[in-house]
Amino acid sequence: MAESFKKIGLIGKYAAESAGDTLKSVADYLEARDLPILLDDVSARVWPEHGLETASRDRIGHECDLVIVVGGDGTMLGVARSLAGFDIAILGINLGWLGFLTDIPPTEIERRLDEVFAGQFVDDERFLLHCTIIRDGEHLNESEALNDVVVHKWDVARMIEIDTYINGTFINTLRSDGLIVSTPTGSTAYALSGGGPIMQPCLDAVILVPICPHTLSNRPIVIDASTTIEIVVKGSEDSRAQVTCDGQINLGLVSGDRIRIRRKEHNIRMIHPVDHDHFHILREKLGWG
Amino acid sequence: MAESFKKIGLIGKYAAESAGDTLKSVADYLEARDLPILLDDVSARVWPEHGLETASRDRIGHECDLVIVVGGDGTMLGVARSLAGFDIAILGINLGWLGFLTDIPPTEIERRLDEVFAGQFVDDERFLLHCTIIRDGEHLNESEALNDVVVHKWDVARMIEIDTYINGTFINTLRSDGLIVSTPTGSTAYALSGGGPIMQPCLDAVILVPICPHTLSNRPIVIDASTTIEIVVKGSEDSRAQVTCDGQINLGLVSGDRIRIRRKEHNIRMIHPVDHDHFHILREKLGWG
Amino acid sequence: MAESFKKIGLIGKYAAESAGDTLKSVADYLEARDLPILLDDVSARVWPEHGLETASRDRIGHECDLVIVVGGDGTMLGVARSLAGFDIAILGINLGWLGFLTDIPPTEIERRLDEVFAGQFVDDERFLLHCTIIRDGEHLNESEALNDVVVHKWDVARMIEIDTYINGTFINTLRSDGLIVSTPTGSTAYALSGGGPIMQPCLDAVILVPICPHTLSNRPIVIDASTTIEIVVKGSEDSRAQVTCDGQINLGLVSGDRIRIRRKEHNIRMIHPVDHDHFHILREKLGWG
Amino acid sequence: MAESFKKIGLIGKYAAESAGDTLKSVADYLEARDLPILLDDVSARVWPEHGLETASRDRIGHECDLVIVVGGDGTMLGVARSLAGFDIAILGINLGWLGFLTDIPPTEIERRLDEVFAGQFVDDERFLLHCTIIRDGEHLNESEALNDVVVHKWDVARMIEIDTYINGTFINTLRSDGLIVSTPTGSTAYALSGGGPIMQPCLDAVILVPICPHTLSNRPIVIDASTTIEIVVKGSEDSRAQVTCDGQINLGLVSGDRIRIRRKEHNIRMIHPVDHDHFHILREKLGWG
Repeated sequence: MAESFKKIGLIGKYAAESAGDTLKSVADYLEARDLPILLDDVSARVWPEHGLETASRDRIGHECDLVIVVGGDGTMLGVARSLAGFDIAILGINLGWLGFLTDIPPTEIERRLDEVFAGQFVDDERFLLHCTIIRDGEHLNESEALNDVVVHKWDVARMIEIDTYINGTFINTLRSDGLIVSTPTGSTAYALSGGGPIMQPCLDAVILVPICPHTLSNRPIVIDASTTIEIVVKGSEDSRAQVTCDGQINLGLVSGDRIRIRRKEHNIRMIHPVDHDHFHILREKLGWG
Repeated sequence: MAESFKKIGLIGKYAAESAGDTLKSVADYLEARDLPILLDDVSARVWPEHGLETASRDRIGHECDLVIVVGGDGTMLGVARSLAGFDIAILGINLGWLGFLTDIPPTEIERRLDEVFAGQFVDDERFLLHCTIIRDGEHLNESEALNDVVVHKWDVARMIEIDTYINGTFINTLRSDGLIVSTPTGSTAYALSGGGPIMQPCLDAVILVPICPHTLSNRPIVIDASTTIEIVVKGSEDSRAQVTCDGQINLGLVSGDRIRIRRKEHNIRMIHPVDHDHFHILREKLGWG
Repeated sequence: MAESFKKIGLIGKYAAESAGDTLKSVADYLEARDLPILLDDVSARVWPEHGLETASRDRIGHECDLVIVVGGDGTMLGVARSLAGFDIAILGINLGWLGFLTDIPPTEIERRLDEVFAGQFVDDERFLLHCTIIRDGEHLNESEALNDVVVHKWDVARMIEIDTYINGTFINTLRSDGLIVSTPTGSTAYALSGGGPIMQPCLDAVILVPICPHTLSNRPIVIDASTTIEIVVKGSEDSRAQVTCDGQINLGLVSGDRIRIRRKEHNIRMIHPVDHDHFHILREKLGWG
Repeated sequence: MAESFKKIGLIGKYAAESAGDTLKSVADYLEARDLPILLDDVSARVWPEHGLETASRDRIGHECDLVIVVGGDGTMLGVARSLAGFDIAILGINLGWLGFLTDIPPTEIERRLDEVFAGQFVDDERFLLHCTIIRDGEHLNESEALNDVVVHKWDVARMIEIDTYINGTFINTLRSDGLIVSTPTGSTAYALSGGGPIMQPCLDAVILVPICPHTLSNRPIVIDASTTIEIVVKGSEDSRAQVTCDGQINLGLVSGDRIRIRRKEHNIRMIHPVDHDHFHILREKLGWG
């Protein structure tokens, strides 16, 4: 017996008027089937003629069982972080450029939504990273990432020096431009540019990718996602570092700061068309063969 | 309550007379404690004055509950493959060069064996790969590897072309010098030279590392160890390939041959000193910091 | 005043009947202008209906001032080696796939040859490597390469160990699958797959690219093309190596063999259409942007 | 007939009191031989008891024919830039860590200076890069670098997009964290961490190394040092970039800015002990063999 979605959230790319037409197609489809819709109130701002009930991200998370996201993979990162605590399925429609997470083209909306509402789709659970910044024993800040947590030099002219531990065991001291801690989802994003491997999305592993390491044998390391990673900022006050989650700047770091990264317990649940093929998307996007 | 080992196998590096002194130290230690010993009959050949009962590798596997290996990581690979089907713990003593798998130096034999026989050691399970070569639907050959299965060009002057599938899903067509399919154990060996990441030993994953790929975006791919990998040799008859398991040549391949690689069900069980630290060995061997 | 070519050599891809139509188009063009033609006698074999005077590669080199090559970059490598000692311009027409050296598509033959015979073309000098193999003080063999000289392991399962010297100065001991010594011309071929940089074609430099080096800090090294490179094979008899020039197997090597590589004094002279743009071809072939 | 140096400049590591003892040893050596000394006035500040005549960097350049630098390679970079326009030989003494440019250990000062003043040394010319920043057609700024000119993202969370031209020919559009333009001298510094090749110091070439490029086939490119490189910053106002010369921040860039990089006409002249061996230093510092 197919799962049936009863209330649908609708979210568009941030500040992108270009998403309006596609959002409208989706809304028309849903209204024609009498499905109640909550439009993300931020998305509503650039689409004034929407005529829909609007709601905060939080209310969407509480009331809807499916959210349809119109945008690119960047849009999806933000949605995943904001809805990571809720039981909600996420479906992505791209705006013309095939994405790893937004794999339905606007031209296929009707056919694909027909399938989805007939219960024909595949589930794709992805985990997020939870990141806590600790200064002088106090939790200064916390944040989440679907792609990656990056500790990066802030001052363009100097390397940073960090120590890394997994489950309390010292791994190494790294002098570099930074360190990318990436999920399998993030392995095709910044981590790939930094020299990391591609990871099968279902893999329960995290990859540590050093950025321009001073020591050439400091290579990417793949570790179990259930470990606790701790990164300690070293060096003098003036070699400042910063931490970002999915490219959002979080906080400037000082010497002695500790970044603790753990797998978030609650996964997000993405859904895809039945013939979804991650490696097909990889071949397209990386120009294989 | 500590596990107590009752009968001990003893294996030395192949054809290495230099292993004799260390084998003797271990045998003296065991005899002084009235522990029955079976000396590997191949190792016995280069150590004629041993005075011990000798046995085949198979008999060691059946009768002993611990095997002590004197040699380097290469020796350990052979032992692991030959004893992979048995319930036996494996302990490695190196011949002067620290190994990832042979981490007890000859100078610490007495202290470390005291600990082991007092039940003070850490367990370290490693999986092997099982590799079947299929030609025209027939199983032509099978073999196992603790480090890696490598499909490699045979003719120095030509690339080979292969298709890779995981669980029946097409991954890509690769034109290259070859493809390394490596366990976490093998990730610090040939796969590392080929550009692969380092993998935490406990990780339940396998890495595919292309060797000198023609397409620059053909990067290493980390996949779940429970998947079935299939590699199909393409191209004309004269672009011949070969398959090796842990560097042992197995078979020449022809166009259409299919190499099926699966995780072997039965793991090997290595044991290490209580303060064993894989990342310490990595730091030593890779010159980190 | 434009240079005018007076006798034209014509060479097709080895054993490729598919080159026949394009060769015929070129021959028709030349005959219509009463230009004497010498057809390469090997190319003539797969194009029996040619009706042209045939000649050896050597005679073409002596009598012609322009040779038109129909094929791919691989064809061009062979032509360049065989005509490297002669004063002859070389023009390349591809068989449908854009090449770095064969950059005129069959559809543009008439237009491009009109330009060339009107003296409108650009010159592009490329140097070759001269390689001598010395065993026990004797010159065992010598050969030339436009792309690369590669010292490569022969036995798929073992690394080779070599020492490299430039102008008599020891560079390093390398344990690896091999070493690529590449010209700028070869930098977009095998050397690129091995991790080497792209080199501007006019550059007077050679690059040494280690293949899967055991030591991760053994990185590509760019050296002045006027230096003498010597590679000495080390290790026991059974870790045999082989040397290839442009992918042609030359000779098996034994321990103690010395491969001496120097820039060949006489360059080849390729000519290209006036709007030839090496970086445009790079962008096309590497999928940049 | 040996060259004889008549007036000696003396420069220590910036703000490093630790350089005092070594500076004193050198000064004692020179005074014992009645050689006139000019001490860099900035170095004098952290060594108050020097008792020497002090001078500006400029006056040292005008009056001295040899400058002895006590510090590391970083100190040498600053000295090279400040003295690049003068006819002066530069000799480097390190403070305990072997450098590529500062290769005389403090323990060998007497022996090595004896050799140098007996005319026994080797010359080592290195070129610098001259960098001009052009905004709206105006020369906004210019600067020089012995190691590298780097165009780098300023905002940690975004890629920058730049176009590169050599001698007016478009090379590519690069989306990345930045681009390193390095001399052979700089090829063992930041460019190496970024994935560039090692370059023989005498080579008349420059290397372009992309930092974490989005497109994986954007590889390092080696070009002739006599070309003019132009880098044009693209993208919206808010993806700001910065340019640094030898790690000194120069200027924030905005969209449309043009960075023009040329080989500086006047080389610097370093001198080394007679048995100087660049590849020996490489082997030491990179842990080869």
